[in-house]
This record gives sequence, C-alpha cells and structure tokens, in this order.
Amino acid sequence: MLKAAVLGAGYMGSAITYPLSENNIKVNLWGTWLDDEIIKSSLEGYHPKLKKPLPDTVTPMYSDRLSDAVKDVDIIFIAVLSDGFVNVFKMLLDAINKKDYYFFKLTKGVVEYDNRIVRASQASQEMFEKKFPGTDFKWATIGGPVKANELSDKIPTASIYALNKSMPKDMPFRFSAGFYPVTITDDIPGVEVSSAFKNVYAIAVGICDGLFKASRPGMYHNFSAFIFNQAMIEISRIAVAAGGRTETVFDLAGIGDFYVASLSGRNARYGEFVGKGENPGDVFNKMFSAGEVAEGYYALKLGVEWIRSLGMDLQQDLPLLDHLYRIVFDAKEPMETLLDFIREMKVRFKSVL
Amino acid sequence: MLKAAVLGAGYMGSAITYPLSENNIKVNLWGTWLDDEIIKSSLEGYHPKLKKPLPDTVTPMYSDRLSDAVKDVDIIFIAVLSDGFVNVFKMLLDAINKKDYYFFKLTKGVVEYDNRIVRASQASQEMFEKKFPGTDFKWATIGGPVKANELSDKIPTASIYALNKSMPKDMPFRFSAGFYPVTITDDIPGVEVSSAFKNVYAIAVGICDGLFKASRPGMYHNFSAFIFNQAMIEISRIAVAAGGRTETVFDLAGIGDFYVASLSGRNARYGEFVGKGENPGDVFNKMFSAGEVAEGYYALKLGVEWIRSLGMDLQQDLPLLDHLYRIVFDAKEPMETLLDFIREMKVRFKSVL
Repeated sequence: MLKAAVLGAGYMGSAITYPLSENNIKVNLWGTWLDDEIIKSSLEGYHPKLKKPLPDTVTPMYSDRLSDAVKDVDIIFIAVLSDGFVNVFKMLLDAINKKDYYFFKLTKGVVEYDNRIVRASQASQEMFEKKFPGTDFKWATIGGPVKANELSDKIPTASIYALNKSMPKDMPFRFSAGFYPVTITDDIPGVEVSSAFKNVYAIAVGICDGLFKASRPGMYHNFSAFIFNQAMIEISRIAVAAGGRTETVFDLAGIGDFYVASLSGRNARYGEFVGKGENPGDVFNKMFSAGEVAEGYYALKLGVEWIRSLGMDLQQDLPLLDHLYRIVFDAKEPMETLLDFIREMKVRFKSVL
Repeated sequence: MLKAAVLGAGYMGSAITYPLSENNIKVNLWGTWLDDEIIKSSLEGYHPKLKKPLPDTVTPMYSDRLSDAVKDVDIIFIAVLSDGFVNVFKMLLDAINKKDYYFFKLTKGVVEYDNRIVRASQASQEMFEKKFPGTDFKWATIGGPVKANELSDKIPTASIYALNKSMPKDMPFRFSAGFYPVTITDDIPGVEVSSAFKNVYAIAVGICDGLFKASRPGMYHNFSAFIFNQAMIEISRIAVAAGGRTETVFDLAGIGDFYVASLSGRNARYGEFVGKGENPGDVFNKMFSAGEVAEGYYALKLGVEWIRSLGMDLQQDLPLLDHLYRIVFDAKEPMETLLDFIREMKVRFKSVL
C-alpha cells in the first residue's frame, strides 16, 4: 500500500485525505504546533473542523512527530498556512532522509524567504536545491474550487495540479476519484497566482456584500459582479507578469476557485465584516483567535510588495487591488473608497457613451 | 432636449430610463401588448416590476402608440423579450419615417428569422437593409452585469456597449452616469453570445443549487463552481465560433453578467426548480404566466440548433450544454445527468492523477 504524509491538519490537509483514502493511499496526517487540539480530537475519532471522523486509513500525528510522519512515505502534501510555509518546509527538509519524494503543495500564497517575497513554489525549490544539490525536485502545486468540508463529504469537486518538469507523467499512483476529477497543467505560476489572489480579491467581493447586505438585502449584485469581473482581469494581469498564462486564470484555479471564494469562505466573510465597518486589523485578529484565518489578508500585504517587485504599477495596472489595499491597510472608508474605484474606472473606460 | 424611445416596458427597458434621465434624455417608454398592465400602473405613477415611480422625464405609452413613440426621437432602445424581437423590429421598421436613428439593443438571445436561427443583431441588420437599402445602420448591442432593479436604484452598475462600424465615435449624447460607467467594444458577436448564453448556463448553476440546497444547505459550491467554470469556457468557445473574441467573454458581458445571473435572476431560479425535481416545461410555463420569463429556456432551445449551424459538435465541444439540454428538453433526471457530466469530464481530463 502506498503511503503519504500530509503536513497540516486544518481544513484542506484533512480533506485531501478522503480522495487519497479512496485511492488506497495510507496517510500520516501531521499537525503543526497550532493543530494540537485537532490531532487530539482526531485521534479520538472526530475531526473538529470537518466535523466528522477521518478515513480509517489516516493516522493523526502530533507536531513532535514530523520525522515519523515522513519516514517511509513516497508522497508529501504540504497544507500549512502560507504564513508558516517556509518554516515548515525547512523542518521538513531537515526531517527527510531520502530525496525522491513527490511533493504536492496545497498552501496558497506568496511567502517571505531569504529577505525577499516569492511564490511558495519558488521558495521551496530554492530551499530544496540548497539542501540536496543536483537532485531532481518533483513538485506540484494544487488549485481549483475546493471547499474542504465539501470535498470530505464527497460533493463533486474538480481540481487542477500544476506539475514541474521533474514530476514524471507516469506516477505510480492516482489521486482522482469519482467525486474528484483532477486535471493537470504545467503552468505553476498561473495556478499559484490564481490560488493566492482569489483569496485577496474575495475580500473585495466580501466588502461589497457587507456594504449593502444590511441595508439592501440582495441589492448589490451589479456592484459585486463588476468587482468580481475586474478581479479576474487583474488576477490574469498578475499571472502573466509572473510568467503564467491567461488561460490558466480563466479555468479551475482562477475563475472556478474565485467563484467559490466569493460565495463563501473565510476571506469573503472577513471582507464582509470590513464592509460593515469593523476595523480591518481587529477583525483579522478576532477571526485568527477563533482559528479562522483569512489568508487573503497576508496575501494582500505580501502580494502588493511582491507585485511591485515584478515591475507592475499598482495604480495603473491593478486599480481594484490598489483600492482594496487602502481599505485594509490604510484604514480608508470602504464605501467611499469603492465608489472612488468606480469613478476611476469610469474615467479609464474613456467611453464615448 | 434629446429624445429616446425605449421599446419594451419590462425590467430592463424601464431600468435604462434612469441613466437616460440622468443624462437629460427624454424617454417614450413603449409597452408591448404584454405590457398593458405595466403601462397602466406606470401612468398612475408606479412601475410594478421595479416597484417605484419612473423618472419624471419618462412618458409611458400603450402598445397601439408605437408610431407616436418613435416619432421625433433620435435614439431607439429595444428591450423586448427575445421571443418577440423579430416581430417588434418589423413593426418598428414599418413605423419609422426617417432613417438615421441610433439603435441600441438590450434584448438577449438568438432569434428565428427567415427560417434560420441567427443572432438578433444579424436579423435586425438584414431586416433594416432590406427596408432601407444602402442606408447606414447605426447599431449597438448592450451587455454587462445589470440587474434592472439595482440599476433603477442607482447601485453602481457597469455596462458594455458593442458598436457596429456605422455607429460614430462622436455621438451627440452620453448614457454613462456616476452610478453607470459604460465601456465600449466593437465585438458584437462576443457581447451577444455572452449575453444570450449566460442566461442558458445560469440554468445549469441553478439546477446544481436546487439539487443540493434542500438537503445540504451551503454544501454544493465546489460543484456549482465547477459548472460555472465549465460554462465560461464553453461560452468562450461559442463566441469564438461565432466570430467573437475570448477577451470579450472574460469581461463584463460574459464573466460579469454570468456572475450576476448565477447568483440571482430568473434563469437561475428556473434552474433551481428543475433541480428540485419539477418538470422543466411546466415550471417554465408557470413562471411565464406569472410574468417571469426565464429567457435562457428559449436561448437553450434555439441556441443548440444555432450552435450546430456554426459547425460545432455539441457533445465534443460543449459537454455541459449537451447535458443541460438533455435535462431541460429530454426530461433526463438532473442529478444523474450532472454526475454523468462529471464522469465524462473525468475521462476528458485524461489526467495521470
């Protein structure tokens, strides 16, 4: 029987164990130091985030057992928060004793590494090559519209895996299942940018919902659709600047995942609080304390710096992101700032109409 | 003061009078024979669909006053249902006495004309040229995420106008307003296909919602996002086959409008009833009788024939549309048919994963 380690016992790490189990892959589910409660409960037969037992083939493991978790496995999924990614990947490289793992990354976002901000795939590749020079780094990054609790309930869920050149096409395992069709691409930047920035822009959609929901229930879809649309266009610009392809953004990793993220999920919910007038920093911390991390908040903060390092002009190329940043990090009033965005777009449209 | 006629006093025709009024354009709002009740109520000061008075600058007119409505106007908006479009356009051509109108079409869909199925812009151009040979036909088709009741409430609403070659760039009027930024394009097929087929595919999203909503509230977003995503890809294929551009589909007329149509609106609501197990024909008729026309139903029926005339292979190129058609017109069971679609996509993905 094939064995995998999944690092991170939160929503996504735990949910991926269901299709793995369906494919007869045994899993060591390793929790970080933040996941102790989850591991404890899971060992007792109940995953508190997914609100159900994990598959029988899953062994939950506490944070002090990383070496045990990755010993004798062929496949490693990394599903920790983006904020902890570099740290955990470093620990992982210290813990592994052989070099021919297949790595799969579920973490979404850009990361700080070596005093720079880079995509998580770039950081991990650099770290791996430093540790194991001259060794093939078999790596994939995963995207697509996947809410963890639905995947674990086997609601049909499509996913897209971006494989690097070292990842062979004839792997000795499968992850797809009847409820989990998987497609592949070679566009790692495209998938990674889409996955990270749909979290960011979902905050904007959430803000728009929050602005109108209380006073005008159901009466704000034109505005949120305009924002949704502009977000997709801006994500595709970022992806192309990062070396990715537009077609990747207008597929599962981008449009599909952004649709889910806009309808529900922590980032849209975070935005909704901000739209209703709560302080952006306070809400983030409050949600964080409750174990609900709006990852788009990190991705917005780091992402804006990273985008500048790509040579993009925020105001010119990404006006929505620019206004969103002002709301979240410069304490600008949400309604007025989004109306500013509309006014600016009206000028940009340069329409004769 | 500039004057416009708006043909069709339903949701969209009535809503467009608000930005027109903002731009000091007087409007004759002509109702079809189906709109008598609306005109009556509007004359008494209350539009029953928009649930508010029309702007002061609007004159509601009964269906027997088409000649009066278009006399002395410069601008004509056509906002009737697609099913009545050819008929009304024929009446319009008989009623107009001069030839230099600016025409704007809000109607969405493909139409039957001259024993063929064609885009409404094609039908109207042919009809105009037949009636006024050698005369410039100044024509635009309108798309974008516009729910009528929100536009009339001045919720920020972006719109895209596709202008034909005869439409001058220096028109003596503006339609955009602070709450209504307008952008333009020359891609009429792209806008028209997007506008028509977002109604069609919104039925599929609605079906998916209907399948799961009752039994698993909130637990179906992965599936509906997959469908949303596939729909966007299929709409772009249809647009390209019809001579339009992908970039148009992945902008306001396509992605923006489809987002709105999926979240709310008559087509998604129609789909939801079907997903819950109601008979597709019966539900359509029931909604029709209540004045709520799910236009995607017509567009699906005619659209499939039209697509075949473009040389596309439904099963191969548009698998979701193919399955949707089977549900709506071949009485196939919705859940099983959508799961079939998932299974088929799994094979198509040809994934090593």
